[in-house]
Amino acid sequence: MFETRFIPGLVVVVLAYVLNGLKGALNQEQFFAFMGYMVLSFFAYVLSYWMIPKIAQLTEKADIFGYDINKKGSDAGKIKIPESLGIVPATIYLIFNILGILFTRAYMPDLILSHISGLLAITFIVFLGFADDVLDLAWRYKLLLPPIASLPVIVAYTGGTQIVLPQLIRPYLGQTIDLGPIYYLYMIMLSTFQSNAINIYAGVNGLEVGQSIIIALSIAVYNIIEISTQQQHLFSLMIIVPYISSALALYNYNRYPSKVFVGDVFCYWSGMTFAVAAVLGHFSKTLMLFCIPQLINFLYSLPQLFGIIPCPRHRLPRYDQSTGLLYAIKTNLTLINLVLLIKGPTSEKNLCRVLLSFQILCTIIGFGIRYLGSQMFF
Amino acid sequence: MFETRFIPGLVVVVLAYVLNGLKGALNQEQFFAFMGYMVLSFFAYVLSYWMIPKIAQLTEKADIFGYDINKKGSDAGKIKIPESLGIVPATIYLIFNILGILFTRAYMPDLILSHISGLLAITFIVFLGFADDVLDLAWRYKLLLPPIASLPVIVAYTGGTQIVLPQLIRPYLGQTIDLGPIYYLYMIMLSTFQSNAINIYAGVNGLEVGQSIIIALSIAVYNIIEISTQQQHLFSLMIIVPYISSALALYNYNRYPSKVFVGDVFCYWSGMTFAVAAVLGHFSKTLMLFCIPQLINFLYSLPQLFGIIPCPRHRLPRYDQSTGLLYAIKTNLTLINLVLLIKGPTSEKNLCRVLLSFQILCTIIGFGIRYLGSQMFF
Repeated sequence: MFETRFIPGLVVVVLAYVLNGLKGALNQEQFFAFMGYMVLSFFAYVLSYWMIPKIAQLTEKADIFGYDINKKGSDAGKIKIPESLGIVPATIYLIFNILGILFTRAYMPDLILSHISGLLAITFIVFLGFADDVLDLAWRYKLLLPPIASLPVIVAYTGGTQIVLPQLIRPYLGQTIDLGPIYYLYMIMLSTFQSNAINIYAGVNGLEVGQSIIIALSIAVYNIIEISTQQQHLFSLMIIVPYISSALALYNYNRYPSKVFVGDVFCYWSGMTFAVAAVLGHFSKTLMLFCIPQLINFLYSLPQLFGIIPCPRHRLPRYDQSTGLLYAIKTNLTLINLVLLIKGPTSEKNLCRVLLSFQILCTIIGFGIRYLGSQMFF
Repeated sequence: MFETRFIPGLVVVVLAYVLNGLKGALNQEQFFAFMGYMVLSFFAYVLSYWMIPKIAQLTEKADIFGYDINKKGSDAGKIKIPESLGIVPATIYLIFNILGILFTRAYMPDLILSHISGLLAITFIVFLGFADDVLDLAWRYKLLLPPIASLPVIVAYTGGTQIVLPQLIRPYLGQTIDLGPIYYLYMIMLSTFQSNAINIYAGVNGLEVGQSIIIALSIAVYNIIEISTQQQHLFSLMIIVPYISSALALYNYNRYPSKVFVGDVFCYWSGMTFAVAAVLGHFSKTLMLFCIPQLINFLYSLPQLFGIIPCPRHRLPRYDQSTGLLYAIKTNLTLINLVLLIKGPTSEKNLCRVLLSFQILCTIIGFGIRYLGSQMFF
């Protein structure tokens, strides 16, 4: 089972692995640039950790708060919990990553356009996500936001537009196929999927941030494995490392029992950051392998997203005050309810552990497919 | 006197002048790119005009509204007026200008980095401005926002860092002086000044938007005059034209009697857009010549900004319900009160006309200094 106290340990292990692997793979200047990013990321954690409670007072004062539905009926369900605190790590992430342009400028001048356009996409979605939290936009507006915000990335994308085909169909279509303009559409859809997939796999204390950190760590590990081959993996790592540290600061306040809620702004920020890291790092298919739970949740949700089955505003499980446990509601088609159906009633804290453990398991499977499975098919 | 109904006429005159001048100065591709921007700008106006009342309902529902202090005591002073509507034209501006990257990419590929980094600075300040409106940030945070947001522009700036010296001191210091890193500091200060100068010259219905449109039109005219000399004036024009059209849509709702308030987000958006247009268009000194009223207001405000004289939250004139006129308050050191002191009590509508007429007069003086005065000194 996934224990939150494992996280700092995990981070240290990843860091040690990172530094050791990178020293060999990078030249000295690149290594210094990366170390600079690590220092920035450390400060991003400290600053986020310090600012979140301060800004939480302001959001509550501005009437941006929610009640914890999974604790409805209990005393904990009556506490006003400040909402949209994703803006704090997101803003600090943006500030440090804008400062980080100085490193890109000095050590990877080829990638400066990618860096700035990636940041433009992320900044725009953070703004739109916060506006959504404050103004409660209608769905028809919401769906337009990620495609628009992802446009700068598409425009700056300089990689190829062909994809490698599986062995099976090569005799008919050749080894690769050039998707051309369709590839750009595919990238827009990826950003849109990422931004929304995290948003609809939510509703348990710590789940949004927990799943996002695990995805981000998977991206980081993948970049480190591949870093010796291409420069863009270093760039992708620079996009993701400050994300991990600022999101970790938020996780401290959002894990069970939540002292703050993260808001749609957090989910948009996370999804777009992953999409930017993967598109500009040229590994968008691999990213999907780290998002298997989000994919399952999305597919399982489809009948409700398309309105075939009535869709309530929150599709959460039922909280029973007498047992303190969560019970599945069969008609709410989310992975959360599916897991409760399989596992039986459990506490919110334990449910989050199970779901995050599943996320880690899926990452391991994802790596397996990437490095073993792909050799069979490609 | 300045009449608001002159504005559409002014726009048509400027447009006709623009198109005629540009056809001669640009090659065919550049001219098409500019025409594309004009079409985008037209849609930006229509879309902003249509969206502002819709979003106004959402901001009011989210408790983002104000009362009109200049009508205090009257019935009009009791109406809830939706606040922060600057986000609507700002968001639409950003969307259309992100789409506009496609034109830059096709016709001015050298300038794509400038374009995207300029948009990053503007997007970031719009987000921070909106967060400020919603959360009511403390001054110590606020002052940090423009310098941070302007960083991408500084990083992408590729022009020279020397300034031309006046004739008088050339015998001692030479014709030009290279400011080096100090020039970057100067650009950060320019963005900070612009963002705050519009913000503190406010408080009369229609004044924030009116002054900003006049400054933007001055920038546009200057770009058109200079466009035959350098490509970056076309770029600067592309930054400013959609601004003018989306801000005009807002002006329709914000002029006396205001149906919506524009919020700090509008002032930050405007200031940063002007700074980006001027820095990346390489005419930051000329921009200051279009901001003489803002400069006077800033200098006159200094004793209160530094706390030498006590500074109330709003430094507005006094509204007298019986006469319906505004009266100067001598201890509120703003240009608004200064004009009322000189001119005597007047209605809010008329006060705005006088102030906007003064803005236009200052632009004309600014052009005079630029084209006649500078020949004497430089």
